[in-house]
Amino acid sequence: MGTVVMKFGGSSVATADLIRRAAGRAIRAKLAGNHVAVVVSACGDTTDDLIEMAKEITDRPDPRELDQLMSVGEQISIALVAMAIHAAGEKAISFTGGQVGMETDSVHTKARIQRIDAKRIHHEFAKGAIVIVAGFQGVDANQDITTLGRGGSDTTAVALAAALKADTCEIYTDVEGVYTADPRIIPTARKLPEISYDEMLELASLGAGVMHSRSIEFGKKYDIPIHVRSSLTDVPGTMIIEEVKDMEAVTVRGAALVKELAKVTIRGVPDKPGVAAQVFHQIASRNIVVDDIIQNVSRDGSTDLSFTVTAGDLPAIVEIGKDFVKKLGAQDILTDDKVSKVSVVGVGMRSHTGVAERMFKALADAKINIQMITTSEIKISCIIDRASAQQALRVVHDAFDLGREG
Amino acid sequence: MGTVVMKFGGSSVATADLIRRAAGRAIRAKLAGNHVAVVVSACGDTTDDLIEMAKEITDRPDPRELDQLMSVGEQISIALVAMAIHAAGEKAISFTGGQVGMETDSVHTKARIQRIDAKRIHHEFAKGAIVIVAGFQGVDANQDITTLGRGGSDTTAVALAAALKADTCEIYTDVEGVYTADPRIIPTARKLPEISYDEMLELASLGAGVMHSRSIEFGKKYDIPIHVRSSLTDVPGTMIIEEVKDMEAVTVRGAALVKELAKVTIRGVPDKPGVAAQVFHQIASRNIVVDDIIQNVSRDGSTDLSFTVTAGDLPAIVEIGKDFVKKLGAQDILTDDKVSKVSVVGVGMRSHTGVAERMFKALADAKINIQMITTSEIKISCIIDRASAQQALRVVHDAFDLGREG
Repeated sequence: MGTVVMKFGGSSVATADLIRRAAGRAIRAKLAGNHVAVVVSACGDTTDDLIEMAKEITDRPDPRELDQLMSVGEQISIALVAMAIHAAGEKAISFTGGQVGMETDSVHTKARIQRIDAKRIHHEFAKGAIVIVAGFQGVDANQDITTLGRGGSDTTAVALAAALKADTCEIYTDVEGVYTADPRIIPTARKLPEISYDEMLELASLGAGVMHSRSIEFGKKYDIPIHVRSSLTDVPGTMIIEEVKDMEAVTVRGAALVKELAKVTIRGVPDKPGVAAQVFHQIASRNIVVDDIIQNVSRDGSTDLSFTVTAGDLPAIVEIGKDFVKKLGAQDILTDDKVSKVSVVGVGMRSHTGVAERMFKALADAKINIQMITTSEIKISCIIDRASAQQALRVVHDAFDLGREG
Repeated sequence: MGTVVMKFGGSSVATADLIRRAAGRAIRAKLAGNHVAVVVSACGDTTDDLIEMAKEITDRPDPRELDQLMSVGEQISIALVAMAIHAAGEKAISFTGGQVGMETDSVHTKARIQRIDAKRIHHEFAKGAIVIVAGFQGVDANQDITTLGRGGSDTTAVALAAALKADTCEIYTDVEGVYTADPRIIPTARKLPEISYDEMLELASLGAGVMHSRSIEFGKKYDIPIHVRSSLTDVPGTMIIEEVKDMEAVTVRGAALVKELAKVTIRGVPDKPGVAAQVFHQIASRNIVVDDIIQNVSRDGSTDLSFTVTAGDLPAIVEIGKDFVKKLGAQDILTDDKVSKVSVVGVGMRSHTGVAERMFKALADAKINIQMITTSEIKISCIIDRASAQQALRVVHDAFDLGREG
């Protein structure tokens, strides 16, 4: 008998009708001969509404109490999904994170799963019940409720699939799968039948993420095939797996665009140990997440240190920037809040040359200037002017022929 | 150091301002040198909204899942109250029924508390924290969430006060205390400074209940003084205690009116063992609660069996009534859905004569006909025509001079 974990996001359980539809899917999987565990997020805007309630009381809610509050969103969903399955004549039982033995550390609002005690789920499977589990939440050793942070329900689903040794983890969402590029920008973008964990991780970090990085890491670690698919159709979506068949043949799997970035360059930074650490410590202490960091070789004992941040974070950087320049004995600081990042991702580029060249040529042919370049083993990113961002994504997508059926 | 349990009902935590006000009260009790445990209900209409959500899915939600769903209302309140106390600069921690060791049986939607493990609360008291506990809910031996049914948060509060050996249990509500009669009907009704558990139990069963019977029973059993008072003022309310000072002197403590009743009489019932059981078994199987039952001595081998039910339940009784008459070999069935019940309650009537006489005379003087009479040791009830209901309450209230300061 197979075991399937199905996860429904907030938009897939936002109304009574959608809840019935999700229940129907779970029942079909059960009738097809599987043990079925369903993970659900909070319905629609519930979590936002709850956070709004907290804000009416205080600007800085205690994280433990915020978790106590936010976790009710998923508790509502699981009860309603279980009721919908009952109404359709099948057995079902819902569990909160605590009831299902989803043990986490005590880092409230971004806890990490440490252990899942699947005993009770197996017990309910044996009785023929579909098991509904609250996503996004767990309990620590004190039985205090924790939440897992952004994308937490995906993580719950994949972790549960690992604990149950499930055959597959199906992530039902409002898109049909993972595309070669954002189909809202590139009409010729193609849904990928398969993608590797590593490629998906890169795409997730590039903002093209249908799923959050942590859940993909879990999938990779425990080798759980993740099926990202639409909750509105029966069309197969995208399988995220370890080894994609054409892994070596296809150099580039997809392209992605991060639109709202700002570029910062501190010029003439003395080339001494500890300088970069000093800069980024100060930035981190303001809770600003730095995207890419670029430092080239030094000339005449000084160097230029560049990095990108989300455009909205630039004012805070500018505020502390002059202080940097003075403290570091640097020359000056230059900023540009009108840049974007276009990237290509593909495991195949590990064993192929010419990917970078092809990307740069495509941008050059379109007269798009490359301001900065960063690469990883399976990714090339170019910082460009934001005015050319969509065009850049299009020419790169075309250059690698990503719209063609593979 | 004293220990106080304070309970705030849904109307007392319905808005952010009211939540802050409740938090302020808890803090004042703490600063006065007490250990403080706060029990809260769901904010405003939350529970009704949740039940509505369930009804959109199914007409007959599974009781376990309904409890899973409904319990989130109190979970929201406790988190918000804890946040409000933090915002005011004091320590606080919230607990769900499960987290605080509120163990119940497994009768979902009307579970009974079996055990409270107060260890964690004492631990938090020792750290100087105000402890906020979700009312209305517990967990059974499987860690399944249960709810306690109507008035459940009051029961939580009184049970918690017993477990913590609290000095007092304060019930904050939207009325100022317990009155000699409903002040909306009788303007001269007087707030009682004290009332005994037994009197309060009788009044609760007569619909005059500021509190639910179960919580009063708990208070009586564990001898917890219960202070019913307004959440909007600092005026003392009514203490519910075992021994009221003027217990023997005052014959009647209060008067109450149940307005919407129906009277049913099965005439000419054969006077045989088992007949009454048969009738009421059939009524109970339709989930109809019978109020009072009256059967007088038989004449010529047959008797008249009367009882009252809520007026809304009469159609169902009429439906099965003809069947009764036939099966029992009775004469016929008479019904009247336009009656009310006026009652007087007082522990003092145990040792005083003339209470019944005084009540009957007051009604007679007002030309109100008494249709049926039932009594308990500390209560006398008369069934009367509904058209005279408010007048009946007034003349009885006057006859015992209940509006006069004692």
